[in-house]
Amino acid sequence: MRILVLGGDGYLGWPTAMYFSARGHEVGVLDNMVKRQWEAEVGAEPLFPIPTLTRRISTWKAETGRGIESFVVDMANNPRGLYNSIERFRPDTIVHYAEQPSAPFSMMNRAACVETQANNIVGTLNLGHAMMSLCPDAHLIKLGTMGEYGTPNIDIEEGWLEIRHNGRSDRVLFPKRPGSFYHLSKVCDSQNLEFMCRVWGLRVTDLNQGVVYGVETEETAIADGLRTSFHYDAVFGTVLNRFVTMAAIGYPLTVYGQGGQTRGYLNIRDTLRCVELAAQNPASTGEFRVFNQFTETFSVADLAERVVRIATQLGFKVKSENLENPRVEAAQHRYKAANSALLSLGLKPHLLTDDLIAGMIQSVARSSDSIDKDSLKPNISWRQNRP
Amino acid sequence: MRILVLGGDGYLGWPTAMYFSARGHEVGVLDNMVKRQWEAEVGAEPLFPIPTLTRRISTWKAETGRGIESFVVDMANNPRGLYNSIERFRPDTIVHYAEQPSAPFSMMNRAACVETQANNIVGTLNLGHAMMSLCPDAHLIKLGTMGEYGTPNIDIEEGWLEIRHNGRSDRVLFPKRPGSFYHLSKVCDSQNLEFMCRVWGLRVTDLNQGVVYGVETEETAIADGLRTSFHYDAVFGTVLNRFVTMAAIGYPLTVYGQGGQTRGYLNIRDTLRCVELAAQNPASTGEFRVFNQFTETFSVADLAERVVRIATQLGFKVKSENLENPRVEAAQHRYKAANSALLSLGLKPHLLTDDLIAGMIQSVARSSDSIDKDSLKPNISWRQNRP
Repeated sequence: MRILVLGGDGYLGWPTAMYFSARGHEVGVLDNMVKRQWEAEVGAEPLFPIPTLTRRISTWKAETGRGIESFVVDMANNPRGLYNSIERFRPDTIVHYAEQPSAPFSMMNRAACVETQANNIVGTLNLGHAMMSLCPDAHLIKLGTMGEYGTPNIDIEEGWLEIRHNGRSDRVLFPKRPGSFYHLSKVCDSQNLEFMCRVWGLRVTDLNQGVVYGVETEETAIADGLRTSFHYDAVFGTVLNRFVTMAAIGYPLTVYGQGGQTRGYLNIRDTLRCVELAAQNPASTGEFRVFNQFTETFSVADLAERVVRIATQLGFKVKSENLENPRVEAAQHRYKAANSALLSLGLKPHLLTDDLIAGMIQSVARSSDSIDKDSLKPNISWRQNRP
Repeated sequence: MRILVLGGDGYLGWPTAMYFSARGHEVGVLDNMVKRQWEAEVGAEPLFPIPTLTRRISTWKAETGRGIESFVVDMANNPRGLYNSIERFRPDTIVHYAEQPSAPFSMMNRAACVETQANNIVGTLNLGHAMMSLCPDAHLIKLGTMGEYGTPNIDIEEGWLEIRHNGRSDRVLFPKRPGSFYHLSKVCDSQNLEFMCRVWGLRVTDLNQGVVYGVETEETAIADGLRTSFHYDAVFGTVLNRFVTMAAIGYPLTVYGQGGQTRGYLNIRDTLRCVELAAQNPASTGEFRVFNQFTETFSVADLAERVVRIATQLGFKVKSENLENPRVEAAQHRYKAANSALLSLGLKPHLLTDDLIAGMIQSVARSSDSIDKDSLKPNISWRQNRP
């Protein structure tokens, strides 16, 4: 395959690029590096120092002999650069991670909200137009999120829903009730992409991904210079990554509210395999296909309890703390979501074992000197300055 | 009331401003005049010459003794100007028409698609943030469109839907399947606004409006200098306005495909009354309320047939013509949509009578010399350059 990874400098983008390169595919990465600017804006830094993309590509070449082509392009604000990159690389598969990925960032203030939606929505619109013009038969794999669904009182299906109403039936996009401007941007992307499939015949797989955790993948482990951008701060860190970091330095785990929030989770290694399965089994012409991409569900309180127990067994001194929830979300709710599509394509999940959590804690503990404790505490409220 | 009309220079915005001013309310209008630029870009001009907003406000003052305050602000790109305007005017009701209103415009090319969605979505995001900060108890009346729903196989309800699935039930936003990037921008607005009601307690009425027709209102008829921007071209003209214009000059009515497309319609006078009813009966704190705002449904073929028959009776020589449909939409479909909420608040519809159509044709015929026939023919294809 010829695979172009958009957002190839990121936590998932860079491991994805190496994963496909290692398996003999031609890989290109496109990024504008704005995530590094956003991190600086909120005062967050990854656990490990992350070399420039250029340097990581050189290291990859040195370690494996394989090349990765790089395009430094802002796909939301430089459509011509995006078109040129696609014209030059001629992808048959495009994996699109190039979005502002943080819910708290999008709730920080007006400017960050607008930056999130404009970047994500316009970038995806530009991409769809570029594909329609230049590679209408390529397969787009777009990263969405399980958070688009919110926490409905009904079973969550995979993107579409057969409904009956007043004795008639239809197949509709699953009704969404997302919980942040970030999640809303992904809902809008999904709507726009479904339309482009319907009207232009594009082929799209929308991966509604759960909360990803994990420090390393097969390829990032090859050399320190290939590590991925692991975040533990309250803005860009996902919850389990945050909890293991807190455990590793004896900082009380920040449980928002009573921790009744239940979500789908998956290991970063499974993210890569899911994207591979989607790429190997592409959507048909005109098909907008949605997979729910997670392997297990946990409540935040359960995760905190497990991390505390395992860290304590390892000799770390740690507890969890219930903070007033900075988000507006249901404290207790039902959560039953389908995830059979990727399993039936052959996904063998890496489940969250105690050993795996222990390994993550120990791995993070080795870098504990570099952790900025101030960035662990949530300081962005969903209610903003509303009295 | 203190009513701020966003998009107050437009086809509906200007009549709305006069309507409320005539009834003793304090009215402000906000506009950036970009619609006049878009018209020039596509080579469209309104049927009547439209004086500047400043001049129309002066005429209104001269005719009625009533003042209208004016704010020239780009609410998508100048958030500070928007905040300042709201701070100065202190509205208790905001009517939001300030969006790119044309489906064909949004399908013209990548740049117009992005301009449509960025203008509409970002403008609405800025507005929501400004309201949360400055007037969280004001009532927002937002113009959406019936086109957001598409043409589902089930009954269309008013914005929300009670569904049962696998033995459980929930109340969800009605699943939408819109037919253009313009319609998609309104779906995204609705999602964003529902979230702002839920999280910030804003009060929003989303008016999912049908296709508006009509040349004049009680207030535009007071003086030529108060007329509103009536469009008959293929980009900005709505279908009935286009058909009466074609009939008035003997141009074959452009029926897209077989004309089986059925939609909800309403008279421009009813638009004003609906907005008034919404304003007099505001949404509650935290409520995202949706009204379907149309009074009758017609198929395009039915409308064409009626206009041809009535124009012929008036002595005009006219026929209709079936063109290849430039849009991608169902040729034949079910269409049953609820519209009881506004009726139960007291709306008395101006129905589409033969006399009314005859009056429109005669009114347009008086300006027939100024009509640009080249702008009547649709030249924007939904399929663009897809082979």
